[in-house]
This record gives sequence, C-alpha cells and structure tokens, in this order.
Amino acid sequence: MTTVALVDDASASPRVRAVFDDIRRTRGTDYVNDFWRAVANDPDTLERLWEDLKRTMAPGALDALTKELLYVAVSIANACTYCVHSHTAGARAKGMTDAQHAELLQVVAMAQRTNGLVTGLGVPTDTVFDRSR
Amino acid sequence: MTTVALVDDASASPRVRAVFDDIRRTRGTDYVNDFWRAVANDPDTLERLWEDLKRTMAPGALDALTKELLYVAVSIANACTYCVHSHTAGARAKGMTDAQHAELLQVVAMAQRTNGLVTGLGVPTDTVFDRSR
Amino acid sequence: MTTVALVDDASASPRVRAVFDDIRRTRGTDYVNDFWRAVANDPDTLERLWEDLKRTMAPGALDALTKELLYVAVSIANACTYCVHSHTAGARAKGMTDAQHAELLQVVAMAQRTNGLVTGLGVPTDTVFDRSR
Amino acid sequence: MTTVALVDDASASPRVRAVFDDIRRTRGTDYVNDFWRAVANDPDTLERLWEDLKRTMAPGALDALTKELLYVAVSIANACTYCVHSHTAGARAKGMTDAQHAELLQVVAMAQRTNGLVTGLGVPTDTVFDRSR
Amino acid sequence: MTTVALVDDASASPRVRAVFDDIRRTRGTDYVNDFWRAVANDPDTLERLWEDLKRTMAPGALDALTKELLYVAVSIANACTYCVHSHTAGARAKGMTDAQHAELLQVVAMAQRTNGLVTGLGVPTDTVFDRSR
Amino acid sequence: MTTVALVDDASASPRVRAVFDDIRRTRGTDYVNDFWRAVANDPDTLERLWEDLKRTMAPGALDALTKELLYVAVSIANACTYCVHSHTAGARAKGMTDAQHAELLQVVAMAQRTNGLVTGLGVPTDTVFDRSR
Repeated sequence: MTTVALVDDASASPRVRAVFDDIRRTRGTDYVNDFWRAVANDPDTLERLWEDLKRTMAPGALDALTKELLYVAVSIANACTYCVHSHTAGARAKGMTDAQHAELLQVVAMAQRTNGLVTGLGVPTDTVFDRSR
Repeated sequence: MTTVALVDDASASPRVRAVFDDIRRTRGTDYVNDFWRAVANDPDTLERLWEDLKRTMAPGALDALTKELLYVAVSIANACTYCVHSHTAGARAKGMTDAQHAELLQVVAMAQRTNGLVTGLGVPTDTVFDRSR
Repeated sequence: MTTVALVDDASASPRVRAVFDDIRRTRGTDYVNDFWRAVANDPDTLERLWEDLKRTMAPGALDALTKELLYVAVSIANACTYCVHSHTAGARAKGMTDAQHAELLQVVAMAQRTNGLVTGLGVPTDTVFDRSR
Repeated sequence: MTTVALVDDASASPRVRAVFDDIRRTRGTDYVNDFWRAVANDPDTLERLWEDLKRTMAPGALDALTKELLYVAVSIANACTYCVHSHTAGARAKGMTDAQHAELLQVVAMAQRTNGLVTGLGVPTDTVFDRSR
Repeated sequence: MTTVALVDDASASPRVRAVFDDIRRTRGTDYVNDFWRAVANDPDTLERLWEDLKRTMAPGALDALTKELLYVAVSIANACTYCVHSHTAGARAKGMTDAQHAELLQVVAMAQRTNGLVTGLGVPTDTVFDRSR
Repeated sequence: MTTVALVDDASASPRVRAVFDDIRRTRGTDYVNDFWRAVANDPDTLERLWEDLKRTMAPGALDALTKELLYVAVSIANACTYCVHSHTAGARAKGMTDAQHAELLQVVAMAQRTNGLVTGLGVPTDTVFDRSR
C-alpha cells in the first residue's frame, strides 16, 4: 500500500530509467527497491535525491559503513520501518557483522534511554559545551 | 531550569559521590555535567545507568568514536538539544574532526529527508530485506 | 490488527450510528474508515472528535485543501502511516494534483533535513524572531 | 521568545479574562502560566482547549495523578520541554512524590529503550495481540 | 519481516533458553513474543534487558498497571506500533479496563495536542516551574 | 550555545560570503540568521542547501505561503524550536495573517491528536487508500 503508483521498468520514462540503471550499476544488483519506484513519480526529486545520496554516502572523512550505521540510527529514532530495513540491509552489504549490528542497537537504545531522562529532568545545556565562539 | 534539584558535591551521598568520582576518573576531567547531577536524585538509576553507559560505549565491534557519532545522530532525531551538545563534545574529546562532524550532519540530514519521503509515500518494506528466517 | 474491536454498523449504538451517518453525509461516501470504527468504542471521544475535526478542517482563513496538506505534513513527521494514507486520500478528494503532492513531499523532506541540521548545530533562536511583546 | 504576543491581564478581552479566571479558580492559584497567555491570542481555541483539558484530566476510570503522569510521559517522548516542566509541576501539585517521579522517569527511559530496539529489529506485531474482532 | 532471524526454542542456547523460561514463568504463559526472539540474537542484551525490565516494571512507588499505562503512552508518542500492541495487551493482563484504556487514549491525545500548540507558540518555560535549587 | 562556531561576515570565505549575499538579496534584508552562520562551517552544505531551499520553496504547484506553513507544521511535529520561530517569521514575511496562524496551529494540534489516537488504537491502513497500482 502506497500513496502513489510504483513506477515499473516498462512505464519508466528515459530520465527515470537512467536513474534506475545507475542505481543498479552503483549497487551491483538488478534490484531497484520500491522506495525509488515511488519517488520516480517526481523525476526531478528522483534525480536530485539519488545524486545527493551517492555524494553524501560516499566515503570521505567517515567511511561508507559508518555512514550507513548512522543512517540506520536516525531511521530508528524516526520510526521509519522501511528505512530501518533497507539501510540495515545496506549496512550488511557494506560489511556490517552481526556483532556490529548488535552494538549499533545497544548504542541506539542507550541514547534513546538518556534522551528520555534528559528531557524528563529538563536539564539545560552546561555552558562548557558551547562552541559558538 | 530543571524538574529536580541538582546534586552538588557537598550534598552528595557516598553512593552518589562514588559515581561522580568514577565519572571524573573515566573522563579524565574534574567536571561532572548537570545531567548526572540531576540523575543523582535517584542513586539506583545513577549507578545502573553509569555502569551500562560505560559498558555500552566501550570499544568493541564498533570503536568508541563511531559509538559517540551514533549517539549524536539519535539525539538529533529525538530533538534532545542537551544530548546533542554533550555528545558532540564527547565525540570531539574522542577525536572527531571538523570534517567528520560535517559529514555526520550531512548523513543525518539525508536520513531525515528520506525518512520523510518514505513515510509520505507510504512504501511498505520490500520482502527482499527480510531476515526473519 | 488493532488494540480494540472495530465497531461495525450492525453493532453500533444509536449514538455511534449517528456519527457514522454524519461522516457518510459530510464526505459523500458510504465508506466509514477503520479509524472511526476503532474510536467508536468510546462514544464520547467519537462525538467530540468528529465535531472538532469538522470545525477545524472547514475552510476559514485557510482553505480546506491547505489544511489537508498540513495534516499530511504533520502525520509524516510523526510517522503515522495510517494518517498519511487517509489524509493523502483526503487531499486528493479535495483536489490535490500529482504536482501538488510532489511539492508537498519536497517541502516536508526539506523541513526534515533542516530540522536535523538545526538541532545538530544546536543553534539558539535569533532574538529578531521574538514576538512575545 | 514566542511566536505570538503574550496576553496580559490588562489587555485580555472579557472572553479571555473569563478563562483566565477559571484557570485561577480551578488550580487555586493566581498564577496563569505563559502557555495560556499565548493561546489566548485565539479565544476560540483558548475556550475549547481549557474545557476539554478540564474534562480530560478530571478523575474518572483513571485518577487525576495517573493522568498527569501520562501527560508528562508523552511530553518527554515528544521533546516538549515546556510541557515536561509544567506537567511535572502539575503532578507534584497533585501529590506526586520524589519516589514516584523517579519511577516515572525509569519507566519512560525503559520504554524509550525498547521502542528503539523494536524498531531497529523491525519486528512485526505478533498476531496474538490482535483485538480487531 | 525483521532485520534479524528470530530465535526459536530449538535453536536457543542455554543462556537464551534460561531467559525464555523466566519470561514464561514471570508472565504465566507459554508464549514468548517475537520481540524477545529477535533480541535473543544478542544474549548479553537479552539478559540485561529482561532483568532491567522486570525490576523497572515491578510495583514500587507506582503500581504495575500505572507503569504499563506509561509504557503505552511513550510507545504511542514514539510511533512504535509493536510496543503499543504488546504493552496494551500487557496492561489488559494487569487489569486495565476498557474505560481505563479509553481515558489513557484521551490523555495521550490531549498531551499530543498541547505539545503541538506549545511548540508552535514557542513558549519558553515559566521560571516558576524551576526546581534546580 | 552551538556545537560549532558561528561564521561572521569578517571571517567568511568568498564562497560563504557569496551565499550570505544571495540570502540577503533574496530576502530583501541585511540580516543573515544564525542557522546559516552555523551551516557556513561546511561551505559545500551551505551552497547546496541554500540552492535546494530556494528551488523547493519557490512558488510552483503550491504557492510560497502554503509551503512556508507546511515547513512550520513539520518543524512543530519535530520539536525544532528554532525552525518554528524562523519559519513562522518567514510565513509572516510572506503575508500570513494572525487568523491564518491560528488556524495553522489548530490543524497541527488536531493532527497531533489523531496521530496519537490512530497509533494508540493500532489501526492498519484501510485497503481503499492504496494507490500502488
């Protein structure tokens, strides 16, 4: 169930098809997941998002796996089930081990726990943390 | 402004004082931040949380800096301003560079963006992502 | 799967039936969606919520479609999949075009992205934005 | 800093003044907190919200303190700092002890922790929990 | 669909089996829900979480039902559908009536509503709520 | 208090200065708000974000004011106080009246309220809302 039709290969315009092909090439798989088939209803967003995503997730000061783990962490906190599934699969494809997955979840759960405590205690930020100057 | 009184060193019970001392020792600083002074109203929680936090954040399958970055990412998604400040400072203390901080924020912003798109498009999870068996 | 039984027409009390009938009349359809059938377990909430919803969503200083788009935007940020689906359908019923839907999602994704950046950067509000006086 | 002017007693219209007076009477204090002074820019919302709030928070199948604790719990999860402060104060006014406050925060932190784990593990709901029929 | 395999009784290690048995004993049912079967991939987390959960949810200054209601409230605000279902079932098992369930949802909905208003109005916390000293 | 230094005009590089100038030109004001001064630590993100924001918020199938209202709505749901303040100011600059602001908040509060009810009731999406085909 989606709020838009999914764009399959047969009905994809050349612009959409080009992005689908690049997704396949970049990931080394023929499978294009349904998120992209939904986004494809808006070719502008499809093109810009895919380009930005590739650039953002490429290894830089942080390696590609760390970036994928961060993606999963945010997706959990935002309760985006789809994103959790797709980026956990992405992290595995980039080498995440079961032990790393377990520790990722431990850290997320710890952060969730203290996020709740801090907000419940209403603590204002210590001035020592300031970096504005 | 907090919802509880902050426990200062003078009024700390021996149990609380022992945790404060371990925080100082572990972090190599005399400064105990206000979160712990607020939690200290409940010595049981203070003791268990500090032990769990040390264990969770210790290097394992993931290194200590990666864990701190994940903590920041979750805290951003949960809009816990205090936690963002304290764990960004923690990440810097563990060696996070400005370039790594910038990429952390880029990945978080990208995840937030696609979390929104996925939820807006209402896409159910592709069955290829299933690991239940 | 729900946490309460769904109230079908046959088992609806006269009070519940009256609201169901008004939903049908107001929307010009015989279909009463499952949200209302779940709420109907608590007839007080059913009556008050339906009245408030009609009043809130009626055209006023903002037109009915704009209100529906705002509803979808909040529902996305809150990860309420059901609400996203039902109010996206509602927006279409009020005339939302595919192009408007695409731009709605673009704005939501942009807001999610900068919400994350602002929180990650920990920026306090500029005093020029103050309207308290 | 607010997005609207705060309505003080001198500038309050008779409708607004009547609600402010009822807030004072109901709570047994002369103090009207700034939330209500901000809402007062929209007298319709002020009147309806205050009536609904009184009715919702009155003792019923759940007692008044339990309701206030639930309010705090939701406000923490939504990162509404103002609401955490005002409803924690409200809970104390209704008799919440320090020990109850500590346990409230323990439960909230535990729920946050497992909410994160469940979402990270992507577990679909067990059919035994279904109440739809 | 999950991000890990579910651990069934046949493949459970002795450590995992011991926790499953304690879950069964504590709850008075043979059923171990899928959350625990997913967590069981990380026996350390399984053991610590289950111990902490039992301790946190045991009656103390707050009774067991109130704690379960708070759990549901947080899970709703965090959009954790699984948690809502499992802890609503847990609350019923601890005696929650339909009337209490209805009032729980009324309070949660009211808190969500004013959380949104407060944040939209941008109201800073009144200094009278301060407990830092 | 921020997690990065704010970039003032004197220390801005030519790339950063060019974006600041375009912000001034586009908005018809000399004031560059602190969000941009924080983002400016990462010139790549500054340039791309500003370009994307201009393009996304330009009138199209939705007018500029509607887009700004949607931005505020998402920011409220995400508890991004800074974003609420800055985009409420932005909406006023684009002509939002007090009555429109009041109705915006009414709709957001209503959506928050039913988002909570839907999640608490655990209602799965009606198949009539499906648009996948």
